[in-house]
Amino acid sequence: MPFDYIPPLLRDSSTKIVLLVMDGLGGLPIEAGGPTELEAAQTPQMDKLAAEGVLGQATPIRTGITPGSGPAHLALFGYDPLEYEIGRGVLESVGVGLEVRLGDVAARGNFCSLDDKGNISDRRAGRIPSEEAIPLVERLKSIEIPGVTTEVRHVKEYRFAVVMRGEDLHPEIHDTDPQRTGVPPLQATAHSAAAEPTAQLFNQWISKANQALADQPKANGMTLRGFSTDPRLPTFKDSYGLKAAAISVYPMYKGVASLVGMQVIDFQGEAPEDEFSALKKAWDDYDFFFIHIKKTDSKGEDGDFDGKAKIIEGVDQALPQLLDLKPDVLIITGDHSTPARMKTHSWHPVPFLLWAPAVVRPDDQNTFGERACGRGGLGDFPSMNTLPLALAHAGRLEKFGA
Amino acid sequence: MPFDYIPPLLRDSSTKIVLLVMDGLGGLPIEAGGPTELEAAQTPQMDKLAAEGVLGQATPIRTGITPGSGPAHLALFGYDPLEYEIGRGVLESVGVGLEVRLGDVAARGNFCSLDDKGNISDRRAGRIPSEEAIPLVERLKSIEIPGVTTEVRHVKEYRFAVVMRGEDLHPEIHDTDPQRTGVPPLQATAHSAAAEPTAQLFNQWISKANQALADQPKANGMTLRGFSTDPRLPTFKDSYGLKAAAISVYPMYKGVASLVGMQVIDFQGEAPEDEFSALKKAWDDYDFFFIHIKKTDSKGEDGDFDGKAKIIEGVDQALPQLLDLKPDVLIITGDHSTPARMKTHSWHPVPFLLWAPAVVRPDDQNTFGERACGRGGLGDFPSMNTLPLALAHAGRLEKFGA
Repeated sequence: MPFDYIPPLLRDSSTKIVLLVMDGLGGLPIEAGGPTELEAAQTPQMDKLAAEGVLGQATPIRTGITPGSGPAHLALFGYDPLEYEIGRGVLESVGVGLEVRLGDVAARGNFCSLDDKGNISDRRAGRIPSEEAIPLVERLKSIEIPGVTTEVRHVKEYRFAVVMRGEDLHPEIHDTDPQRTGVPPLQATAHSAAAEPTAQLFNQWISKANQALADQPKANGMTLRGFSTDPRLPTFKDSYGLKAAAISVYPMYKGVASLVGMQVIDFQGEAPEDEFSALKKAWDDYDFFFIHIKKTDSKGEDGDFDGKAKIIEGVDQALPQLLDLKPDVLIITGDHSTPARMKTHSWHPVPFLLWAPAVVRPDDQNTFGERACGRGGLGDFPSMNTLPLALAHAGRLEKFGA
Repeated sequence: MPFDYIPPLLRDSSTKIVLLVMDGLGGLPIEAGGPTELEAAQTPQMDKLAAEGVLGQATPIRTGITPGSGPAHLALFGYDPLEYEIGRGVLESVGVGLEVRLGDVAARGNFCSLDDKGNISDRRAGRIPSEEAIPLVERLKSIEIPGVTTEVRHVKEYRFAVVMRGEDLHPEIHDTDPQRTGVPPLQATAHSAAAEPTAQLFNQWISKANQALADQPKANGMTLRGFSTDPRLPTFKDSYGLKAAAISVYPMYKGVASLVGMQVIDFQGEAPEDEFSALKKAWDDYDFFFIHIKKTDSKGEDGDFDGKAKIIEGVDQALPQLLDLKPDVLIITGDHSTPARMKTHSWHPVPFLLWAPAVVRPDDQNTFGERACGRGGLGDFPSMNTLPLALAHAGRLEKFGA
């Protein structure tokens, strides 16, 4: 349980909490003294919320640590990423929409190039493009191993994910990637006695896969890594008493949300307006809504400062749709920073806006931006405090002690 | 390991980090509404760095706790002083330039006055001045104990340090200081079976020392305290992947730096310019440079507000020498506060300036001073976060998780 003092304090409530996550929201100025992406964006709605609410800056994992998307979301949901870990195979699998149930074993796969002696000549199969890899993944889907079922899905370029389902499977299996060329891929070997049969099943699968790929000039072999299963995270219901829903365009975030017990909402479209429409439809059925906006991060990774600012402006323009639902608590933040200047995730703290009209203690900031958040009334705090703040402002926690 | 999640994230880099520590930097106004020492000092270089970089205030140990110099530096280096302890004997010994290897036993010594019954009449030998104590320490240097070697060095007034080296020595020995007068010094007694022979060796040494001091009117006896050995701190190389160098005029800080595996750089002179010249010479050979300026603390302890401000101004004037080397990350801070008004170390947080031109997220502060640091974008944080911040801004950490 992420906060073991919280479940005994939970009380019934009909209040609604919205956690609006703009992926990679935090940024940097392009030039000295200039604005960040969020500061440059015209965000009248968010600025009004900032004036009425309170700001702060959140550190996702630990000071100085740049988070991957999985750990960053775990932290936002209150699960310390140093304590709760989603295996790489599971993360890759849920990221492309594969289901990983408890007892399944998931792995990340790389196509690789093997020479005529069976040694790896390229660990990434010449980075074959997705168009070439997708038909190869189709071949892998048809492999059958007695006693188990496997699901395979393409990820990107030379990467794919595989999930094996059956009786008594165990994930304690070493990577088959030797991490260098000039040697053959390793056999799958178990590091627990219980996992030995599972390792043999994967070896059978790899062997059949290699046969299916034998005619390929580049992608004629594979390595598997990150064998793992459902991490059995405590659920939002048990941890926070919340019936929670997730609204996201990208499978990866749906996947992480489902691992903490959120219901993933199906909807059409990709725009913030579409996500907010889905929110409206689901409004009566849940207490807590996680809404994920991906493109702030994508534009940041592209180094597109103006594009990232525009995405933020698009969210701001759609915001009245969300506000019309009259949430009791609205938090607008990111999972981590992705400054366009750096074209990658970074360790910088994340702007955080908490709005809860009835009970928030306002500071004297009235714009939503990094510098304002650095002066905000919430101060600096770990992202893991997000849910306790949300529950408190939603009136969902009893007093501790008499 | 101070941050066990850091070593797996380290990546090779040629970036350079400078940690410039002005000892006891933090101060207080002399009169209500007035400036602190740092605020009063004219520091155009540091103010420019503050405008381009980000400020904050660092708490060395825990809120409200006034640090000694050893723990304060451990904290700056990332080692929680509540977890990692340098024994008092070791700290005193390395502070006067004695080497303490693993297996050596170091102790702090006090000369004391014994009456004709052998009872202590003054625990500090009438606070004899250094000039009187130095020749007595010379006498102690000539004591020989079969099977071990001893090194003795004068510290200040009635204080000295002794290090015993030999086979199978153990430091679990009680202080011989009874903490009161009218009774004789205690025998050295072990609190582990393994340390009993070591305690006897120290008793032999004390007995010969008392013979050598028998003709003295005041300093005719001694007590020993703080028996300890090399604390085996994790090294900077293992903890942070850094090849680290220490530039300091005072042995104590060289000693603490060497205990965490820094290479101590020899150089001539005492001025900031001399330290920065040493930095330039060592620049190509190391990744990380700890530069220690002592006199800010000394002036603070003297209650000399203007003198402390002048020392800060001297560092500022010399700073272009350092900046010409183009460090990737420069941190300017103190190990603790020593307000001239208080004439002693204090618990107040320490002004902290982080400058890293490529990747720092600036705040809107543009002077380096306590009030500005209290509004800075780094907020309030433990001094132990210094190295993670440095590594992140130096591009020396991989992303955590996918």
